[in-house]
Amino acid sequence: MTTAKLLTDAEVEAIPAAKAVFDDIRATRKSDFVNNFWRGLANDPVSLKRVWEQLKAVMVADSAIDPLTKEMIYIAVSTANGCSYCVHSHTATARAKGMSDAQHGELVSIIGLAGQTNQMVTALQIPVDPEFEVR
Amino acid sequence: MTTAKLLTDAEVEAIPAAKAVFDDIRATRKSDFVNNFWRGLANDPVSLKRVWEQLKAVMVADSAIDPLTKEMIYIAVSTANGCSYCVHSHTATARAKGMSDAQHGELVSIIGLAGQTNQMVTALQIPVDPEFEVR
Amino acid sequence: MTTAKLLTDAEVEAIPAAKAVFDDIRATRKSDFVNNFWRGLANDPVSLKRVWEQLKAVMVADSAIDPLTKEMIYIAVSTANGCSYCVHSHTATARAKGMSDAQHGELVSIIGLAGQTNQMVTALQIPVDPEFEVR
Amino acid sequence: MTTAKLLTDAEVEAIPAAKAVFDDIRATRKSDFVNNFWRGLANDPVSLKRVWEQLKAVMVADSAIDPLTKEMIYIAVSTANGCSYCVHSHTATARAKGMSDAQHGELVSIIGLAGQTNQMVTALQIPVDPEFEVR
Amino acid sequence: MTTAKLLTDAEVEAIPAAKAVFDDIRATRKSDFVNNFWRGLANDPVSLKRVWEQLKAVMVADSAIDPLTKEMIYIAVSTANGCSYCVHSHTATARAKGMSDAQHGELVSIIGLAGQTNQMVTALQIPVDPEFEVR
Amino acid sequence: MTTAKLLTDAEVEAIPAAKAVFDDIRATRKSDFVNNFWRGLANDPVSLKRVWEQLKAVMVADSAIDPLTKEMIYIAVSTANGCSYCVHSHTATARAKGMSDAQHGELVSIIGLAGQTNQMVTALQIPVDPEFEVR
Repeated sequence: MTTAKLLTDAEVEAIPAAKAVFDDIRATRKSDFVNNFWRGLANDPVSLKRVWEQLKAVMVADSAIDPLTKEMIYIAVSTANGCSYCVHSHTATARAKGMSDAQHGELVSIIGLAGQTNQMVTALQIPVDPEFEVR
Repeated sequence: MTTAKLLTDAEVEAIPAAKAVFDDIRATRKSDFVNNFWRGLANDPVSLKRVWEQLKAVMVADSAIDPLTKEMIYIAVSTANGCSYCVHSHTATARAKGMSDAQHGELVSIIGLAGQTNQMVTALQIPVDPEFEVR
Repeated sequence: MTTAKLLTDAEVEAIPAAKAVFDDIRATRKSDFVNNFWRGLANDPVSLKRVWEQLKAVMVADSAIDPLTKEMIYIAVSTANGCSYCVHSHTATARAKGMSDAQHGELVSIIGLAGQTNQMVTALQIPVDPEFEVR
Repeated sequence: MTTAKLLTDAEVEAIPAAKAVFDDIRATRKSDFVNNFWRGLANDPVSLKRVWEQLKAVMVADSAIDPLTKEMIYIAVSTANGCSYCVHSHTATARAKGMSDAQHGELVSIIGLAGQTNQMVTALQIPVDPEFEVR
Repeated sequence: MTTAKLLTDAEVEAIPAAKAVFDDIRATRKSDFVNNFWRGLANDPVSLKRVWEQLKAVMVADSAIDPLTKEMIYIAVSTANGCSYCVHSHTATARAKGMSDAQHGELVSIIGLAGQTNQMVTALQIPVDPEFEVR
Repeated sequence: MTTAKLLTDAEVEAIPAAKAVFDDIRATRKSDFVNNFWRGLANDPVSLKRVWEQLKAVMVADSAIDPLTKEMIYIAVSTANGCSYCVHSHTATARAKGMSDAQHGELVSIIGLAGQTNQMVTALQIPVDPEFEVR
């Protein structure tokens, strides 16, 4: 159950601005599969294009952080934000980019540990040490 | 302002179980500096030891994820959980482990992008694609 | 699957204090439909009455914010808090109050953008500008 | 820095509806001290009265959960929601109601542990066991 | 204390890509004031431009939701996400766009009420009514 | 759908380190039932052991907070963190430890009230009263 229709390929075909983004998603990912997130966003083609362009710039383009690390960071944020869909989709992507079972297990441990100390720090209201100051 | 006292070195000295953990923190990190989180936890030496042992096992021990990536994942979770102290302390640690300004900038961008799509997915209530299923 | 039974109309009928609230929900909304939230709360009739009275005062009574805007604000909070049920129920209500597809699309974009900048601000630990001070 | 003025006693005196709530807070708590939360809410006397009446009914009235346990639950929620002010105010109240240092230490440990397993469960997307079903 | 330097006007001047964005912020807002968020982002001019372009498209451009409502939605999300800076900056902007004290009071009440029912729904694990289904 | 396999008893049997933890879970709880969380964690036996040892120390061992109160605190955190699985499993445990319907109803009310005031405090950006300072 969604709050906006998930558009089928036929429906997207009828909206040129959405069709152009779907074409680019397929070309960029070298795959015919377009996942549900984009089908929901396609109801608002301007937003679809904006989010896709941003994702392409941040997650796909060459950069100072390697592609697998990027996906693990994405999983970490999605977990802390409680987005089930995002945890699923980015875990699938991370595995496709080579994340091993051992790395996944460690990722889950780091996320859990951070979740623990984050809450303990908040419960204790620990003040920032001056040593952490940016020069 | 904290909800429990931050213990000074002199006060920790008087609690052998806490003193032993502080000694191990200093030996493991090869530094005399012990940050406020541990000084707040030291009020409960059993918890202090448990959290430190866990942190050492997850974040310090050799593993399938490199030390800098671990810190970036920690920053990502801490940001999504809104823990200012944790963002500061782990950003300082990541920089000490070699995170460049370019990597920090990208990390912030990935966290921001994930925060954006996490919320859009939740607002649209997108269902998980069967393609993401673990076999 | 819930953690408390969802009471049927017959079960509510047997609890006068809950019955009175259900009658008021139906009269206020001019509809026989009572959604699951109230059926779960009906296990605790005092709480049921307290929450309903509050909702009626804040969301139904005439006020300085128009009814559709109120629902969009409610959707925004519910999304950020990750409450799927609440996103569904308030999106349905907002549509019933006239929210267009264009408005829904924009709402999702604003929520996403805020989610993005919220996290970037937290990752960067930006201090509040003195210009934002309330006089 | 707040987003609405914190009203002084003199300013509250000039708003009869707010004054009546302040009088009740003082009488109920048998103390002249009224903390900042109520001074911020006093800008909207209707809301001030609604929130205070609710707090009195849930937190002050006799009930099936003892007063100290209620405060510890309040601290737990406030920590997970990242509300520093609320962590401070309810920890002070819990101590006034007799929370020992040992109980505070354990509370912090439980909150931390829950924070950890909450995140691990979300990262692993664990499905609910049918055994947990409410009959 | 931030995790990246807040760039001064002189420092921004030395980075043409950042300078161009600052010029556009000033021209668009018809004000010389550039708040700290953009000064922190300016360390990464590509990200600065991307976020500003997005904010301009979503929050400044003409659209199906009026400017004040947009700001109130932004405050709602920022509050639920616990971003103090964002609550301050968007409350200041909303007041500049005409938000009255009465509207602010109601906004706070709606956010509070949603926060309450969001958590009760989650504690009770209420299932979505089929009536809320998108046709 | 999970992001890691839920191991069956037969699969756990083949991993001695995981088998030992499952044996201890069954012996400690005096029950043959091992819930899904541990079956997901069993993919990483080191993490499985670490989390179980911690849970046993914090939740099972004798302590200054009684077992039912601990479970209610756990439910409170899990609700605020939006972990459906955790809300289900700890509500089932709390009921098994004697939580009455009246106590559950009150717990939900306290969680809801805290959720409300947490958000109002954040929206108003209330500063901590000096009276709450730890001496």
